[in-house]
Amino acid sequence: LRSRLPDVGTTIFSVMSQLALDHGAINLSQGFPDFALDPALLEHVNDAMRQGHNQYAPMPGLLALREAIAGKLALGQQVTVDPVSEITITAGATQALFTALAVGLHAGDQALVLDPSYDSYAPAITALGAEPVRIKLAPPTFALDWQQIEDAITPRTRVIIINNPGNPSTRVWSRVDRAALAQLAERYDLLVIADEVYEHLVYDGAQHSSVLAEPALRARSIAVYSFGKTFHATGWKIGYMVAPPAITAELRKLHQFLVFSVHTPAQFGLAAHLHDASHWQNLAAEYQARRDHLATGLSAAGFDLLPCAGTYFQLASYTRIRPDLDELAFAKWLTTEFGVASIPLSPFYGDGANHQLVRFCFAKRPETLDAAIARLAPLA
Amino acid sequence: LRSRLPDVGTTIFSVMSQLALDHGAINLSQGFPDFALDPALLEHVNDAMRQGHNQYAPMPGLLALREAIAGKLALGQQVTVDPVSEITITAGATQALFTALAVGLHAGDQALVLDPSYDSYAPAITALGAEPVRIKLAPPTFALDWQQIEDAITPRTRVIIINNPGNPSTRVWSRVDRAALAQLAERYDLLVIADEVYEHLVYDGAQHSSVLAEPALRARSIAVYSFGKTFHATGWKIGYMVAPPAITAELRKLHQFLVFSVHTPAQFGLAAHLHDASHWQNLAAEYQARRDHLATGLSAAGFDLLPCAGTYFQLASYTRIRPDLDELAFAKWLTTEFGVASIPLSPFYGDGANHQLVRFCFAKRPETLDAAIARLAPLA
Ligand SMILES: CSCCC(=O)C(=O)O
Ligand SMILES: CSCCC(=O)C(=O)O
Repeated sequence: LRSRLPDVGTTIFSVMSQLALDHGAINLSQGFPDFALDPALLEHVNDAMRQGHNQYAPMPGLLALREAIAGKLALGQQVTVDPVSEITITAGATQALFTALAVGLHAGDQALVLDPSYDSYAPAITALGAEPVRIKLAPPTFALDWQQIEDAITPRTRVIIINNPGNPSTRVWSRVDRAALAQLAERYDLLVIADEVYEHLVYDGAQHSSVLAEPALRARSIAVYSFGKTFHATGWKIGYMVAPPAITAELRKLHQFLVFSVHTPAQFGLAAHLHDASHWQNLAAEYQARRDHLATGLSAAGFDLLPCAGTYFQLASYTRIRPDLDELAFAKWLTTEFGVASIPLSPFYGDGANHQLVRFCFAKRPETLDAAIARLAPLA
Repeated sequence: LRSRLPDVGTTIFSVMSQLALDHGAINLSQGFPDFALDPALLEHVNDAMRQGHNQYAPMPGLLALREAIAGKLALGQQVTVDPVSEITITAGATQALFTALAVGLHAGDQALVLDPSYDSYAPAITALGAEPVRIKLAPPTFALDWQQIEDAITPRTRVIIINNPGNPSTRVWSRVDRAALAQLAERYDLLVIADEVYEHLVYDGAQHSSVLAEPALRARSIAVYSFGKTFHATGWKIGYMVAPPAITAELRKLHQFLVFSVHTPAQFGLAAHLHDASHWQNLAAEYQARRDHLATGLSAAGFDLLPCAGTYFQLASYTRIRPDLDELAFAKWLTTEFGVASIPLSPFYGDGANHQLVRFCFAKRPETLDAAIARLAPLA
């Protein structure tokens, strides 16, 4: 076998979660909540199973769920999306991103990736026979340098993939950023793939600027979302993608041969649950409190914190603690010696650059955060 | 956008299921059971949700489920499979097949496909930039002509994809077929992708000859299975693939960026359910009775039946009923005029060949089969 991904090993998430397990560490590495889902949502799913909704859902997803999503987008983003021709339910955001990249790229094409980037983007592009062109954004602000981005464009560039709010940068795009993206995408006829799975986790009163709410981008974008992130059920693996009808038609051609359809009972449950907007409108306040809780503890332990504008992750510099270690070594040391697992930033850079930063997930119960803080206190 | 699949429309399954819905027809087209799952399985899934198993499963699948699968393979196929390095849980068999094809094929490679073939094989190969080389097997026996298959091999041939039992042919491979495949695959160094999702639905006392039970094939095969088929839950979208460690390593590299992981609560439920072998050992007898039930009614209505050796489908010739219609026209006519939906055979051939055959799904309650038979009776 000639490998499609000769350079790929196990993702850093699996590596660190396994290390956490092996050492009984509190797992603030891989991003997932440790608190309960709304029991009403479980009840809806269970009802669907008992009522016999266990066979294939329609290929693009349950219409009732797509309609509920359109309602959510109308309310939350003030955008009108047609559930029939513009929304497709996927086996999580990862499948949506892979499918979107497959639609946008052919062998030999290039895709712009803004580093630090979520760890599936570049390998998915490579697996498709295309080439990720990685643009390095630097901490602490990870500011976009549009000249640098434009300079990276070649006649082979077809796609730019963005993540807003950004994991692991935690950066939230401004409207100015978004307008600049629209200009660039139009000028170079790029397809925009916008990973917006943390759409609701934007803090300190800022607003999420979705590509869907900017008409010039809406026409050339695939926006990707995740119920796992929004409803604390990362293991359910249900996401969706929103794109204009002509792009959606291509997405579905691939989707139908890639997975065909998605877990039916969960789709019923989510459709019912979405109807109450309070289930997703208050997430930012709730997560901001968790952010501040962990931040206080990390600061006390001697970490220097980067601003966290969005997502459920906190970047922290350990320069005052162990300047001698690179990020992976530090994350492993912290896991094995202090029992708290984090994620090094370096795997999110194409060149593996080290900035003495690690990422902590704060999507955790206060008790979990307290326990982690107690374990880290001796560092100070 | 330049399409990866310019010639692909909506699958025949969605087309016929929609037509059935629009006309209130009994849907014997798309293959899915209309009877209930074992309530104990639902209870296991519900328990897992309530116990909080709603976050990411490990990337290769829940270990407990992989161990239960290894136990099932040991009991059912008398083969030893390592759950850690040889089994990967997927978002249904369709995702397993896509991932397997992506591992075996690069742009420009060729894959042998035996027509009539399940409708995802050829488009998945095309979407990957490779080329399906379709070999036509003819009704009523769909016998394999190994000389014809060997003649189709070129220096670009990398993969042969087989389906045993075959959908829609309903053909079950003999040990002689399997030995011939092993010889051919070794001689031309082919990767074998074996879709064995109907492994338990083999009738009249015949045995399923899995690629896993033939050492020469085991070493170069990816075998694909589906809990949806085995436990009457096609909408749960959980399958798995079995392959030697080196091939599995490549499968997982793609799997982790294609979907990462699969619905967690269902994996817990299936792991518990698999432990009782009676849950899957008696399926053939049960389905054979359904087969015979439908066959009697179809014969009485004037159809000529092809032998059905496996799967939950029955092929039937309508030559004595409407010889003037091609298969798609006949299937539509039967749906709209008689209220029974079937699937034409022609979409399963690369050249769309017509044989005046349609496929009926008999994975239905006796009442459903009776109702369909009653609607078809006036045809006679
Ligand atoms: C798919 S596991 C990774 C979860 C996640 O989004 C993260 O930790 O960044
Ligand atoms: C994925 S829908 C098709 C179901 C099926 O296997 C069939 O009808 O052949």
